[in-house]
Amino acid sequence: MPIVTSLLDIDWYKLTMAQFVFHRYPDVPVIYGLTNRTVKVRLAETVLLADLRDELEAVQRLTFRADELAFLAAFRRADGTPLYGEDFLGHLASLRLSQFSLSSGPDGQIDLRFVGPWAEAIFWETIALSIVNELYYRQTAPDRDAAYREGEVRLAAKIERLQRYPEVRITEFGTRRRFSKEWQTRVAATLANQLPTQLTGTSNALLAMTLGLPPRGTMAHELFMVLAAVSGAGPESLRASHGRVLTEWYQEYGDELSVALTDTFGSEFFFHDFTAEPARAWRGLRHDSGDPAAFGATALAFYAGHGIDSRKKQLLFSDGLDVETIVSLWERFHGSFQLGFGWGTNLTNDLGYAPLSLVVKVVEAAGRGTVKLSDNPAKAQGSPADIARYAQAFGHRRGAYRETTY
Amino acid sequence: MPIVTSLLDIDWYKLTMAQFVFHRYPDVPVIYGLTNRTVKVRLAETVLLADLRDELEAVQRLTFRADELAFLAAFRRADGTPLYGEDFLGHLASLRLSQFSLSSGPDGQIDLRFVGPWAEAIFWETIALSIVNELYYRQTAPDRDAAYREGEVRLAAKIERLQRYPEVRITEFGTRRRFSKEWQTRVAATLANQLPTQLTGTSNALLAMTLGLPPRGTMAHELFMVLAAVSGAGPESLRASHGRVLTEWYQEYGDELSVALTDTFGSEFFFHDFTAEPARAWRGLRHDSGDPAAFGATALAFYAGHGIDSRKKQLLFSDGLDVETIVSLWERFHGSFQLGFGWGTNLTNDLGYAPLSLVVKVVEAAGRGTVKLSDNPAKAQGSPADIARYAQAFGHRRGAYRETTY
Repeated sequence: MPIVTSLLDIDWYKLTMAQFVFHRYPDVPVIYGLTNRTVKVRLAETVLLADLRDELEAVQRLTFRADELAFLAAFRRADGTPLYGEDFLGHLASLRLSQFSLSSGPDGQIDLRFVGPWAEAIFWETIALSIVNELYYRQTAPDRDAAYREGEVRLAAKIERLQRYPEVRITEFGTRRRFSKEWQTRVAATLANQLPTQLTGTSNALLAMTLGLPPRGTMAHELFMVLAAVSGAGPESLRASHGRVLTEWYQEYGDELSVALTDTFGSEFFFHDFTAEPARAWRGLRHDSGDPAAFGATALAFYAGHGIDSRKKQLLFSDGLDVETIVSLWERFHGSFQLGFGWGTNLTNDLGYAPLSLVVKVVEAAGRGTVKLSDNPAKAQGSPADIARYAQAFGHRRGAYRETTY
Repeated sequence: MPIVTSLLDIDWYKLTMAQFVFHRYPDVPVIYGLTNRTVKVRLAETVLLADLRDELEAVQRLTFRADELAFLAAFRRADGTPLYGEDFLGHLASLRLSQFSLSSGPDGQIDLRFVGPWAEAIFWETIALSIVNELYYRQTAPDRDAAYREGEVRLAAKIERLQRYPEVRITEFGTRRRFSKEWQTRVAATLANQLPTQLTGTSNALLAMTLGLPPRGTMAHELFMVLAAVSGAGPESLRASHGRVLTEWYQEYGDELSVALTDTFGSEFFFHDFTAEPARAWRGLRHDSGDPAAFGATALAFYAGHGIDSRKKQLLFSDGLDVETIVSLWERFHGSFQLGFGWGTNLTNDLGYAPLSLVVKVVEAAGRGTVKLSDNPAKAQGSPADIARYAQAFGHRRGAYRETTY
């Protein structure tokens, strides 16, 4: 039985981004690639490529079902208009997922790439991640029920700890790294019932539908990365592409989904580029790499510098959270921001087995390599030459980047 | 968006019975009818018939999906052979649900009937019940989130109480009376995580699939009712039909699903008809009406009378359970049987709104009215003349039934 049996079994931000892409850049040819950052795990020696191929082919046979489209069609913006336009829903209705190429590399890793026009290839990311994860843990943890028992104990401890902080708000963000689809479902439902006022929703669109939870998500690095790649190679074009994402995103969704991801080319550049007008208009910021406490302090100073009351702004942490990090960030910043915590790996894959740090990232757009710098050099991505060029383009504004960091 | 979006969103016993029917009585023309035993609720004045029609028509458009059939195909009997044969899975693959007729009666109730060959019409029962329930509670409890909050508090109290009885085993049996599909999903997942060793599974086939829980269920009254109706009108034929169900069920599934429902024509007749051989062979009994403690005492005496160790037999209670009844029955019988508790209405519809006692029962088979006597006169079903005839046929064996009881 296939792992992914619904095209809605993806993160919500894939849908919000897909509509943005569908309206503006549907035909940009892109390539997404799988990277295993946990290099010591030779993934291709654990996951059978034939199994992975079967799973991916099963996904290629899926289409959005009528009830799934009806679910999406029911979302409204604050002004009452549909969140998803009829044009986009029509695109989804006829969508079949694009091609992939699969092989094992000499390093023992899986070489998995998705090629296609952006408005189609965009849907693979979290699907591929959750499939590879589940196949890996089937091999690594063959006694599923024993793993679930350990997971239940650990989940109960998390819940108990968070019940002591009733103002802490968390969002289930664990699709991509989930131990299994079943386990993510059970975790999300348990949080909904055990932390009903604290769980603000789930990133998984299918779980939002089946559990009656708000779906959560806005944007990811790929928007900045693709627009930078297609903007031209010069530093001015690269820098301008960042603001273009912010401007066009706000044009697409207005206030609705205005939580900006801050670290694609480093948060220092972000805070330079995110000027007073968007700072005032946007609902808030998402932190996804680097020291979260330092980021919070910077964001606080940033809003204060613009004379903006940060207590009305959202600050969403989503990088490598565990319960103690959540509690400590909440204690530090709860008087300063509307805090949110997008809790992923440690929430849906904490059953006694080491998690894998897998990502599926856009690696090429319109024939050019893409780049992510991030606030954590370990999360940087791109060819060394491209990284150097981007670091210079984005860092020179304030002299913060040194090529050798990457 | 439709309430039921999968043909697997049914109770497991519909599938186990459907295969039995498919192999033996596929073309018996049957009619199922909805009955609201909570007569003070004028259902047709709360539920909009147009909404109900839309929901039922949406179900008629459903087919079993490939992943759902693969899920079913994976179940094995103890001897390694498939639980569901290829012939039956082929039947499911081409299945479309049969016709229905819908109107409102002069009593303010909904007149809903399903007509078709038994092997097709059998699938409507729990689907219709869960749809009518959810439509009713949408009207009655328009603030869904507030209802869920109350439900969460009540569920937490149940869990806390049962955690103090770690040997108590429960099964989620709440599909038919669920407040909503979402709520049942959340309850089942929460129990899976909070009472991991105590939850033995769910009756809902879809939740079994999505949550990774064992699906549970065997047989219902309809087997006895239809076989009695088609057996002929005389008392000997009626009485013989009861044993025929038991014999043929055991032929179909062997030990696998050998938990007998005991109350269709009264448990007194059951214990008369269930002789030493089946008593020895079958795994156990299910109680579904009448005083459960008295039933347990009778079952104990019954097994003792046959020289059978009742501690090796299952006794499953499934009638109107709440947590205190479960605890009290467990305290009384846990040394005497392998106890199970099929927990329905009070588990999935305890959110501060009075539950509805709705049933969908087979009312006609091969042109003859069907009859259920039960151990609770309020649960009896059939025309007065038919009930009298059945009561005489089944009661005269020991003189226990009086027509006036019904």
